[in-house]
Amino acid sequence: MEESAPRQGRSVFVGLVGASQLLGLASVVLTGVWMGHYRQGFAWNGSAQEFNVHPLCMVLGLVFLHGDAILVYRVFRNEAKRNVKLLHGIIHLLALIISIIGFVAVFDYHRAAKIPDMYSLHSWCGMATLVLFCIQWVMGLLFFLFPVASSGLRAAYLPVHVFCGLVLLVMAIGTSLMGITEKLLFSIMPTYSQFTPEGVLANVLGLLLVCFGVLLGYLITREEYRRPPNPEEESLSVHFKTLTEGGSPTSP
Amino acid sequence: MEESAPRQGRSVFVGLVGASQLLGLASVVLTGVWMGHYRQGFAWNGSAQEFNVHPLCMVLGLVFLHGDAILVYRVFRNEAKRNVKLLHGIIHLLALIISIIGFVAVFDYHRAAKIPDMYSLHSWCGMATLVLFCIQWVMGLLFFLFPVASSGLRAAYLPVHVFCGLVLLVMAIGTSLMGITEKLLFSIMPTYSQFTPEGVLANVLGLLLVCFGVLLGYLITREEYRRPPNPEEESLSVHFKTLTEGGSPTSP
Repeated sequence: MEESAPRQGRSVFVGLVGASQLLGLASVVLTGVWMGHYRQGFAWNGSAQEFNVHPLCMVLGLVFLHGDAILVYRVFRNEAKRNVKLLHGIIHLLALIISIIGFVAVFDYHRAAKIPDMYSLHSWCGMATLVLFCIQWVMGLLFFLFPVASSGLRAAYLPVHVFCGLVLLVMAIGTSLMGITEKLLFSIMPTYSQFTPEGVLANVLGLLLVCFGVLLGYLITREEYRRPPNPEEESLSVHFKTLTEGGSPTSP
Repeated sequence: MEESAPRQGRSVFVGLVGASQLLGLASVVLTGVWMGHYRQGFAWNGSAQEFNVHPLCMVLGLVFLHGDAILVYRVFRNEAKRNVKLLHGIIHLLALIISIIGFVAVFDYHRAAKIPDMYSLHSWCGMATLVLFCIQWVMGLLFFLFPVASSGLRAAYLPVHVFCGLVLLVMAIGTSLMGITEKLLFSIMPTYSQFTPEGVLANVLGLLLVCFGVLLGYLITREEYRRPPNPEEESLSVHFKTLTEGGSPTSP
């Protein structure tokens, strides 16, 4: 009976990760269906079809891939830390590139359609999220992948990096919810209140994004899913810390 | 030098709590100014002025008071746990009553103006947040204030209660951001893009709410601000647990 507890815990973890991936993928697919089926699809010519690239890129990059880049630390918590770090950085880089394409799409569309930029709360929050996401990525690169900072500074920055990563994921989801609201009111304001299929589909997309965020938040913050201390990494860290600072070791 | 570190940490904590209160109060005041100055004030007669009660009550109840109810566990972390629990429950009850008044205001206005209910993503998320907030309050009452559950069950539920509380605060803020977006597009869509004072004020309100949420999240999740273990409470907990279950004690 006692031996089955960790196995049961592992099954719950696998189930929750699976559910998060289903929610994330369903969000991306639903955004694609919304823009592809109800909003005349995608193009890169300054038309409304170029705008449609924006929501798809943001949900794929700044929500789904961003969330998964964080999740690799829980899913691969028994793999070598260096490899996991590299995967974390690469998925984040991909998320960043896709998000920037999404940003270019909306600015390009605005320019062609002579719509002013950066006046809405959605755009303010979105810009803040992308700029902070870039800073977070560069800081992560400098502190953890090519560690130019001392071991003590790294250990002090780690909880801030983890907290900011989760805050940025939540901000990305909150900004997406505002984006969905904006798009629906700009496109179908007269019929939105009649529960038209497009409105219901977009609302369901919003709920899926919320559920994705809640599940990711749970998986990331739950103590038992954290990376267990690795004796080999610990001893290396102690050695490095003693050499550089002569302080007592910490386990970031 | 070493003795000054905890005092410095205490000053940072006091500064952050002060900043969170300023942000929360500024959000409530700005909502009042927006509705009072730009949207013809408040009334309870089914008019648009009754609608204006809705945003004020939601920002005051489901965001500011909700956040402060959580924060009492950090601010009064050296006071008797029973008193802090009571304060936590009372502020939450106040938040709940004010939120329900806010909900009644919008449904009453919709009925008088013959506007359909519950079609927008804002309303779906808002209803989910309020219903879950009620469930969370009743569960908290049963588990912690009038503990009908066993000590083991309480310890198992505590992290879920804490996680859900923070999720609901974030959901309340996200729903407010959608509400701001909706209200601006319904009221000033033609001029919003010209950076009119009302639009800028509402955008600033949105940013203040985001900052309030981030600061609260930091204060609540940071390890050093947690309630320190109390030997007297611990021994009582051990005694109770040993009597009822015969298990090894845990520190919830």
